[in-house]
Amino acid sequence: MKIKVNKKILAKNEDFAAANRKFFKKNNILCINMISSPGSGKTTILEKTAKAVKNKINMAIIEGDLYTKLDAERILATGVKAVQIETKGSCHLTAEQITNTLHKLDTDSLDIIVIENVGNLVCPSDFDLGEEIRAVVLSTAEGDDKCRKYPNSFAQADVLLINKIDLVKHLDFDVKKVKRDARKLNKDLKIFEISAKTTQGMNGWFNWLTEPRQ
Amino acid sequence: MKIKVNKKILAKNEDFAAANRKFFKKNNILCINMISSPGSGKTTILEKTAKAVKNKINMAIIEGDLYTKLDAERILATGVKAVQIETKGSCHLTAEQITNTLHKLDTDSLDIIVIENVGNLVCPSDFDLGEEIRAVVLSTAEGDDKCRKYPNSFAQADVLLINKIDLVKHLDFDVKKVKRDARKLNKDLKIFEISAKTTQGMNGWFNWLTEPRQ
Repeated sequence: MKIKVNKKILAKNEDFAAANRKFFKKNNILCINMISSPGSGKTTILEKTAKAVKNKINMAIIEGDLYTKLDAERILATGVKAVQIETKGSCHLTAEQITNTLHKLDTDSLDIIVIENVGNLVCPSDFDLGEEIRAVVLSTAEGDDKCRKYPNSFAQADVLLINKIDLVKHLDFDVKKVKRDARKLNKDLKIFEISAKTTQGMNGWFNWLTEPRQ
Repeated sequence: MKIKVNKKILAKNEDFAAANRKFFKKNNILCINMISSPGSGKTTILEKTAKAVKNKINMAIIEGDLYTKLDAERILATGVKAVQIETKGSCHLTAEQITNTLHKLDTDSLDIIVIENVGNLVCPSDFDLGEEIRAVVLSTAEGDDKCRKYPNSFAQADVLLINKIDLVKHLDFDVKKVKRDARKLNKDLKIFEISAKTTQGMNGWFNWLTEPRQ
């Protein structure tokens, strides 16, 4: 029963995702869907990114959360446009929610939209939002076994941001093992080792984000 | 559509949860359902707990994960019984999965069963497993805004374990704010500040776990 209904929900989601993808392509907007556990540092990464790139490219952020507008407020404080979607307890964003949010952004002038998904390393990976790039964030504090335990999120990503790299010296976290495990699932994965807090490694990410694309 | 089906799924889950609760009561077993984000340290807490209390009480662990038997293997290495449930990608444990696992444990001799749920701070909070105690683990590395952003998990808990307290000095994490936010949701919440890695604060948790109950 559950599987049948999920198939219906997923099929409906795919229709909206296809429409979003077409819209982004037509408007020459790079859309990134950012997925991670709660507290891996997505919002801090996006705050620092917004500040660093806002004079080079036009960017907007769609924030997904169960409740509160806290994250959108943090982005707005950087001077970059942000819109909050409150899922009211639902564990992931849907493509339909993105479709219904796009009109709130001045999409004519945008180069990049980053969608910060609900903090959850399981459910969001099943829901295509129409993005071109899927980025997964893993904090070093979460442990180095996460690629093996949550393989879908890593297998479907284009980019892996290993965040809180400044904490590695206080943790038992083997960066090489994580990179090896991640590339076993996904050999083309682009990996950045960063600390959004100290900005270590962030320039590589900023440059990759703003480089000209076909 | 989704809500209607979810109601059916939840109603079915409630039936199994009620049966589990009856079974635990009849057999005088304290059942604890442990919930958290990925990487908050549930398995390390349970490893240290198993070692510390195994000569005082009879304990068994049910491990929930999407894939792999890694966590059960870590517990078994302590000499405490552990059984793994692999959910094959599903984002939470169900009461039915617990019902179907109990026969693998020698329940006649058990005092405590701890269920380590799938690493996910959203979905498991909707699924009663028939437990008497719900424990939520929050790692300091996840940030001090989590009670506000994921209120259901904290509102429904009996115990909050604030883990990785040894990392606080390297982080912007306000312990007092978290305790205040958590108690706003849930005034009777029992809170332990611990580090499973250094064992700081763990004795309070061990004592609470092993104290005689009505």
